[in-house]
Amino acid sequence: MKELKVGVVGLGLLGELHINQLQNEIAGVRVVSVCDIFEKRVDEIQKKYDIPNGYTDYDEMLSAGGIDAVFIITNVQAHKDQIIKACKAGLNIFVEKPLSLDVNECDEIAKAVEKNNGKVFMIAHMRRFDPSYAAAKKAVDAGEIGDVIMFKSTSLDAAATLKVNVPKALSGAFHPWFYEMGIHDTDLARWFIGSEIKEAYATGGCYVAKELAQVDDYDNGFALATFENGACAYIHVGKTAASCHVEAEIIGTKGTIRVNSIPRRNRVEILKDGKASEDLIFDFYERWGEAYRIEKIEFLNCIKEGRQSNISVEAGTKSLEIANILHEAYMKKELVKAKTAELNKRK
Amino acid sequence: MKELKVGVVGLGLLGELHINQLQNEIAGVRVVSVCDIFEKRVDEIQKKYDIPNGYTDYDEMLSAGGIDAVFIITNVQAHKDQIIKACKAGLNIFVEKPLSLDVNECDEIAKAVEKNNGKVFMIAHMRRFDPSYAAAKKAVDAGEIGDVIMFKSTSLDAAATLKVNVPKALSGAFHPWFYEMGIHDTDLARWFIGSEIKEAYATGGCYVAKELAQVDDYDNGFALATFENGACAYIHVGKTAASCHVEAEIIGTKGTIRVNSIPRRNRVEILKDGKASEDLIFDFYERWGEAYRIEKIEFLNCIKEGRQSNISVEAGTKSLEIANILHEAYMKKELVKAKTAELNKRK
Amino acid sequence: MKELKVGVVGLGLLGELHINQLQNEIAGVRVVSVCDIFEKRVDEIQKKYDIPNGYTDYDEMLSAGGIDAVFIITNVQAHKDQIIKACKAGLNIFVEKPLSLDVNECDEIAKAVEKNNGKVFMIAHMRRFDPSYAAAKKAVDAGEIGDVIMFKSTSLDAAATLKVNVPKALSGAFHPWFYEMGIHDTDLARWFIGSEIKEAYATGGCYVAKELAQVDDYDNGFALATFENGACAYIHVGKTAASCHVEAEIIGTKGTIRVNSIPRRNRVEILKDGKASEDLIFDFYERWGEAYRIEKIEFLNCIKEGRQSNISVEAGTKSLEIANILHEAYMKKELVKAKTAELNKRK
Amino acid sequence: MKELKVGVVGLGLLGELHINQLQNEIAGVRVVSVCDIFEKRVDEIQKKYDIPNGYTDYDEMLSAGGIDAVFIITNVQAHKDQIIKACKAGLNIFVEKPLSLDVNECDEIAKAVEKNNGKVFMIAHMRRFDPSYAAAKKAVDAGEIGDVIMFKSTSLDAAATLKVNVPKALSGAFHPWFYEMGIHDTDLARWFIGSEIKEAYATGGCYVAKELAQVDDYDNGFALATFENGACAYIHVGKTAASCHVEAEIIGTKGTIRVNSIPRRNRVEILKDGKASEDLIFDFYERWGEAYRIEKIEFLNCIKEGRQSNISVEAGTKSLEIANILHEAYMKKELVKAKTAELNKRK
Repeated sequence: MKELKVGVVGLGLLGELHINQLQNEIAGVRVVSVCDIFEKRVDEIQKKYDIPNGYTDYDEMLSAGGIDAVFIITNVQAHKDQIIKACKAGLNIFVEKPLSLDVNECDEIAKAVEKNNGKVFMIAHMRRFDPSYAAAKKAVDAGEIGDVIMFKSTSLDAAATLKVNVPKALSGAFHPWFYEMGIHDTDLARWFIGSEIKEAYATGGCYVAKELAQVDDYDNGFALATFENGACAYIHVGKTAASCHVEAEIIGTKGTIRVNSIPRRNRVEILKDGKASEDLIFDFYERWGEAYRIEKIEFLNCIKEGRQSNISVEAGTKSLEIANILHEAYMKKELVKAKTAELNKRK
Repeated sequence: MKELKVGVVGLGLLGELHINQLQNEIAGVRVVSVCDIFEKRVDEIQKKYDIPNGYTDYDEMLSAGGIDAVFIITNVQAHKDQIIKACKAGLNIFVEKPLSLDVNECDEIAKAVEKNNGKVFMIAHMRRFDPSYAAAKKAVDAGEIGDVIMFKSTSLDAAATLKVNVPKALSGAFHPWFYEMGIHDTDLARWFIGSEIKEAYATGGCYVAKELAQVDDYDNGFALATFENGACAYIHVGKTAASCHVEAEIIGTKGTIRVNSIPRRNRVEILKDGKASEDLIFDFYERWGEAYRIEKIEFLNCIKEGRQSNISVEAGTKSLEIANILHEAYMKKELVKAKTAELNKRK
Repeated sequence: MKELKVGVVGLGLLGELHINQLQNEIAGVRVVSVCDIFEKRVDEIQKKYDIPNGYTDYDEMLSAGGIDAVFIITNVQAHKDQIIKACKAGLNIFVEKPLSLDVNECDEIAKAVEKNNGKVFMIAHMRRFDPSYAAAKKAVDAGEIGDVIMFKSTSLDAAATLKVNVPKALSGAFHPWFYEMGIHDTDLARWFIGSEIKEAYATGGCYVAKELAQVDDYDNGFALATFENGACAYIHVGKTAASCHVEAEIIGTKGTIRVNSIPRRNRVEILKDGKASEDLIFDFYERWGEAYRIEKIEFLNCIKEGRQSNISVEAGTKSLEIANILHEAYMKKELVKAKTAELNKRK
Repeated sequence: MKELKVGVVGLGLLGELHINQLQNEIAGVRVVSVCDIFEKRVDEIQKKYDIPNGYTDYDEMLSAGGIDAVFIITNVQAHKDQIIKACKAGLNIFVEKPLSLDVNECDEIAKAVEKNNGKVFMIAHMRRFDPSYAAAKKAVDAGEIGDVIMFKSTSLDAAATLKVNVPKALSGAFHPWFYEMGIHDTDLARWFIGSEIKEAYATGGCYVAKELAQVDDYDNGFALATFENGACAYIHVGKTAASCHVEAEIIGTKGTIRVNSIPRRNRVEILKDGKASEDLIFDFYERWGEAYRIEKIEFLNCIKEGRQSNISVEAGTKSLEIANILHEAYMKKELVKAKTAELNKRK
C-alpha cells in the first residue's frame, strides 16, 4: 500500500511524541514536513527524525503540498485558523484536544470541515483508543452492566509535575483544568453515557498552588453533572496526586466497570518492611504511549479505507460545552444549566 | 469487674444482632431485659438468648429497673421519646442511627441528655469502629496525607436486596436513602473533613426500582458538597450494586487513602476460564459484624471508665443536617445552601 | 443449653489467647480450671479471667473433676501423657499442634483415644477453620477447579519476630521449622490433595539467622513432594518475611484457587509519593484470631452434638509423617521416600 | 544513522511476529531478505511486509550478502549449523531460544561465535527485556531485597492452547516443556540468583493430556533446585492454566519482589453478580509483544554501538544445563546432581 505523507505543525513535547511514533513505530506513513515558529526547533526535529522539509510558516507548508494529512499539535488558540486552511488545502486533519475553547469557533470549524469533501477529520481523544477504555466501552455496548447510570472520571497529574504545570498555567500555555485536562473526561462522559449534559455543579479549590486562582485555575476541581437521559457524571480534575492518576468507573444498572483503579506502572509488587507496594505511573507519556500510537493508526486507517473518524467536530463541540459548564459552575459556585450556557455562548 | 446489665428495646434483625453479640461475644455484660411491641418476638428472643425479663411496654421496662444502660434499636420515629425517658431514668444510652429525622427533635434530645448527669450517650455509627476506617482516621490525624480536600463515600446495597428493601421503603420502615444509608456517610464526612457543610447539589434517580419515587426515595443518589473549610465531599448512596459495597476515599494534599475499594468477602481468589475473580461481600451483616462488636465494647468501656463517647447528640444533629441538605437538593435538583436549610428546620 | 465446663493446661501466650476467647467471645462455655507449672502465672490468669480453680499439677486438675473437656496447650513433649490421662478421665480433648514429634507416640495416643468412649478429640489445626481456607476447601470439593494437581503452601513469620523466634528455637521451645510451622502446611496438603506423601526433596538454609543450624533449624526451608495419587506439594516455611505471610495456592486441572496472596492487614490502601501501598499482617495472632475462635466453637459443637471432629489422631500422625520426611530431606539434602521414613520411625 | 539491513530465516508465526515488528514498529532497520523451506510462505511474507529478497535456501541467502545481521527463528535442531554458517559470513546473529538441546552443540557454537570478530550474538530471552522483569532486576541489583534466597518461576500456557500444543509436542515441533518453556525460567533463575545449579528434584505429570507421556513431555512439571551459592529455585512449567500465566517471585533476605502475580490483560475490572473479576492474558503474543520489540531494539543497538549482548552462548549453555537436569529429574523422579548431568552430556 502507498505510504502516506504527512506534515506536523507544532513541535512541542507532544508534537515530538507524535512525530517519533509516526517515524519509528507506525508503518505506512512518513512525516515529510514539519512546522513551528521556532526555526531552531524545526532544524532539530528535522535532523532527529530525518524529515526533508521544515517550515516556520504554516501557509508555506500547506502551499508546498506533497502531504496527505496535517497533524495540528499547536496551542488551542491556533486550531481554528489552521484547520480552516487545511480544509481549503483539501487535507486530512488530525488535531489535538481541545478542539477550541469557544463553541462559536467550533461552529466555524464545522462548516469548513463539512466542505472538505469527506476528508478525514479527527480530534486526538487518545483515551478512547487505550486498550482498557476500549475494552470498557465494548463491554458497556454489549450490555454487560445494563444501562449506564453514572460515569465517574478522575484525571490527576502528579504533584511532582506542579513545578512545570503552574508556570504553564500562569503563562497561559495551559488553560483552566476543566478545559485542559477535563476535556478528556467530558468527551468520555458523552461516549459512555450517550446523552448530553443538562446541568452541573462544581467546586474545589487551589489547595496547594494558591497562585492558580490568579488565572481562574485550580489544583483540584470536582463536578457533579446530570445528563438529559437521567444518567450522571462525577468528574474530578487535579494536579496534586501521588502519581499520574486517570481512572474511571462506569456504573450500570447491572454491574460496574472500573478502569485503572490503581495506576500501576508495571507488573511488579514489592513486599518489604510490613508493606506491599506497587510503583505508580509517573506522567501521561508513560500512561498513554500506546493509546497515542493506536489513535494515529486509526486516523491513518480512516484515510486508507475512506471512512470517517468518530471523533468529529460535533464531539469536540459537545465536550467543550460540558467543560464550559463545569468551569462556569466552578467559578460561580452555582448550579449551571446547559441551556443558559449554550445561549450565552452561541447567541 | 462488675458485669453491666442492659436492656434492649427494638427486637428486629438488627436488635437481635446486637443482643447476640452482647450475650455471646462480649465479656462483662448481660442483657437482662428486652422490649418489643410484638409479644411473640419478645418470647422468642428471651428463650434464644436466655434473657430473664421481657416487656411489650418500654415504660415498664424502665420502671422495673435493674439495668445500667438501654440499647434503643427501634424505628427512628420512636427515638426521641425513648431517649428522653431513658434520661429521666438516669440510664446510659446507646441508640441506633439516625438519631432522628428532625433537627428540632435533636435539640430536645440534646437538652435531655445534657441533664442526664454525665451518663454515656452514644449513637451507633459503627463504621467509625471498623478497623479499616479507624486505621484511615489514625493515618489522617497523623498527617500522612496532608490536609483533607475531598472525602468520597460510596454506600451501596446489593441489588439482590431490592426485594426486601423496596417494600420496606414503600411501607415507611426505611427512609429515603440519603437518610437511611447516607447518615453514615454524612457522619464520616464530618469526621474526616473536620468542618461543617456549606452547600450541596444532588442528583440520581430511580433507575431500577421506579416505585421508590412514590416515597421520595431513589435507588441511586449522587451528591457533591462543599464544606466551610473548603474541602468537599462526594457521596453516593444506592441500592443496586453488585454486592454490599461501602467504600471511601480520603484525598489529601499529600496523598490518598482508600478504604475497601474492592469489597472482598475473604482472602480467596479464583483463576479460571481466562478470568481472575473474587467473591464480594453480600450484605451489611457480613461487612460490619466486627464493627458492631467493637462499637458496643467502646460504649461499655465508656460506662466502666466514666468517660463520654465521641458520637454525641451534636454529631447526630450535624450529620442529619447534611442528610437534610442532600435529600432536599436531590428532591429539588438545586444547589442547597446550609443556612437556608438550617433556618427552615429550626425556626 | 447446658454450659460446658472446661479446663486448660498450658498458660503461655497461646494458652491465654484460647482462654480469653473461651471466656469472652464464645457462648455456652466456661473455663473453670487452669493449670501450669508456674504458680504465679496460674494466679494471674485466674484473676484476669475470673476462673475459680487453679492448679500446678495436671493430675490434680483431672482428679478434681467438674470439667467436660480439657484444652492441652502445652509443649509438644507433654502431649502424649496428658492426652492419655485425659482419656482415662473420660474427657473431651482439644490439643494444640503438633500432636507429637514421634509417630510411635501418635500410635499410643491413638490407642488411648480409641478407648475414650467416643469422646471428642481434636487437634488445633486452626487454618482449616479460617473462613478463606474453608471457602477454598468448599470450592475444591465442589469441583470448581477439577482435580487438585499441586498444593503450594507458604508459611512465613515476619523477620521482625526473629529476635523472639531464634532464642526459642535455640532453647528447644520451638522445634525445627518444618515441624513447628510446617505441620500446618502438611495438614493442609493432605486435606486438599486427599492422598498420602510418596517422596520429597527439601532444601533451604540459615540465610539470616546462621545460629539456627546448631539446632537443625533453618530460617527458610523449601520442599517439593509427590503424593501417591500423583498430585504434588510445594511447601515453603520461613522466618524472615516482610510480614506474617501465610498463603496457599491450590492448582487444579480446571482452575486455581489462591488464599491470602497478599496478606493485607485491613481494607486500607494508601497512594502516596508515587506508590500504592497496603499494610501487611504483623503476626499470627492478628491473622488467625477468628480461626482460633471458630475452631473452638466447632470443638464445643462436636461435644454438644455428640459427633467427632475430623482432625483426628490419624490426621495428626499423617501430617507428622510428612513433616518428618521434609525435615529429613532438608537435613540430608536427599530425596526421601515415604516408605523408608515410615519404617525407620515405626519399627 | 545508517539503516541496518537484516535477513530472517524461519517464517513461522514467531518469525512473522519478529518481521512485523522489524518492519513496522522499530526504526533504523529493514528486513531485506527472508528464508524458509516453504516457498509459498516466503512469497506470502515478502508481499505482506514488502521484502525484496526471498529464499528457500539459507546458504543462498547468506551468499547473496547485503545484510548486517541474521535472525534465526527456526527449529532448535537447525540452530547450530545456521549459527556456524552465519559466523563464517561474518554476520551479527540473533537466535531464538533454546540455543540448542545439546550442550556439546553449544560448545561448537561457542567456538564459532568466538571467531566471529566481535559481531553481536544474542539469544532471544525476551523476558529479560519485559519492563516488569527489568524493573525487578534493577531493584534486586540495587539491593532492595537483600540477598536472593529463592527464585520462583511459573510459566504456564492456557489450557485453551492444548489443542495446538499437544499435536506440536507429539510431532516433535515442541520439545518437553522444561526445555521448550522452561528454558526461560532457567535463564531467569541464573540471572536473578547469580550462581549455577547444584542439584534438583522434579515431579509433575500428564494430568490432563495423558498422550504427552509418549514423547517424554508433561502438562505440568514442578522442580525444586539448589544453587551453588545456597539460593534455591522453584520452577513450574505447565500447559493447563486458566490463561497465559507467567509469574515470578524473587525472595530476598530483606523483602520479596513479585512479577505478574495476576496476569491481567488490561486495566479493567468488572464488579457484577457478587464478584469482582479481571480478564487474564490469553497467549504469549499478548503478554510479550513489548518485550519482543525491546529485545530487538537492544540487539540492533548492540550492533550500532559496537558492544556485545549479555545473553551470550554461555548463558544459553548454562540455562540448557539446568533444563537438562530438571527434565532428567522429572523422567527419573530422582534428585539429579549437576556434575553427573554435565559429565553425561559433555564426555
